[in-house]
Amino acid sequence: MSKKTKEKVAETAVHLFYLKGFHGTSVRDIASSANVNVSMISYYFQNKQGLLEFLIVNYFESYLQKLEKIQKSSSTKSPVEQMEELIDAIIHYKQENHQFTSFIQRELSKDNILVRELLVTYLAKEKYLFEDAFYQIVPSTQYSTVEKEILLFQLKGLLQIPFTMPYEWKSMVGVNRSDDVYLTKYVKSIKKWVRTLMASGEEVQ
Amino acid sequence: MSKKTKEKVAETAVHLFYLKGFHGTSVRDIASSANVNVSMISYYFQNKQGLLEFLIVNYFESYLQKLEKIQKSSSTKSPVEQMEELIDAIIHYKQENHQFTSFIQRELSKDNILVRELLVTYLAKEKYLFEDAFYQIVPSTQYSTVEKEILLFQLKGLLQIPFTMPYEWKSMVGVNRSDDVYLTKYVKSIKKWVRTLMASGEEVQ
Repeated sequence: MSKKTKEKVAETAVHLFYLKGFHGTSVRDIASSANVNVSMISYYFQNKQGLLEFLIVNYFESYLQKLEKIQKSSSTKSPVEQMEELIDAIIHYKQENHQFTSFIQRELSKDNILVRELLVTYLAKEKYLFEDAFYQIVPSTQYSTVEKEILLFQLKGLLQIPFTMPYEWKSMVGVNRSDDVYLTKYVKSIKKWVRTLMASGEEVQ
Repeated sequence: MSKKTKEKVAETAVHLFYLKGFHGTSVRDIASSANVNVSMISYYFQNKQGLLEFLIVNYFESYLQKLEKIQKSSSTKSPVEQMEELIDAIIHYKQENHQFTSFIQRELSKDNILVRELLVTYLAKEKYLFEDAFYQIVPSTQYSTVEKEILLFQLKGLLQIPFTMPYEWKSMVGVNRSDDVYLTKYVKSIKKWVRTLMASGEEVQ
């Protein structure tokens, strides 16, 4: 299998997993859509699980590399600049890989045990990097621990919803707007929310 | 089929659709889990699609009734009080039916055409009721149309993420906290966000 064919199989698998879920897609479906022989897939990826593992490693290694690079640049940046860089990097990475992003979230929400086990180390690393940056910008004096946890969950949610709520996203994006322009405005709105958090922790009655 | 048995079939179907998706669940699975005969399901619901339709009608009729009731009480309440009541009603309804809520969102994100077609009228009604209330509280002078659309999308997302991100939600909720206490704090945080929106529309650089 040439590198090009391997990539084609991987891309086809992402697309089918996205459309029909992991359990709803067979190796035969993937082979047929990618126009390759089933035995070729077996030889290179062993089985469907091996293919999924390959896709997950590909996605998360490069994703976490981006986050780590931003974390390592912390000496030259303020915590809020670092957080904003993370937000940009995360949302653009998710957008570039929106089908796989949506698939992963869906399988996690179904509590697909295989997916969860393959992800556990990556999710722990992501949690560590992101939460570390988040807690540096949210003032401890103004929010309780529970409030901070909720705000963190909300921020994670805001970074995820363009890919879990495509129906609402699509209905929002008019015909004349390109996705990229809209995404930029969306990211700006999240950054504004983050700055509001930092500025005002006082309780609203 | 007694009313009790019919309910049992409906509940079993919700649970299996939630776990395995609509296409991943067969009428035979449902019959076997609910311990009833396949022909009984066929007689009452015709087929899997009929069962799904029954569940969707049940879910949305009662959901929209709650939203409409709040909308009709608008003469005695300020727009922000009405919005807060909507937020309470929506999140508690979703929580009470969290498996079906999560299932519906997942099928929409897969663009399941059958589900989308069954939902189209309900989603339009929900959109009308919710957006009407939302635009009454967000000051036109302080936000552009696009900004308001993005904020609306974010609010919809915040009402949805406890059910699309159960993994992160669970990891946030410690052992000693009950879901209800946490949900109350979560709702409070959303209301705070809404009040912040209303108070300050000025641009953050």
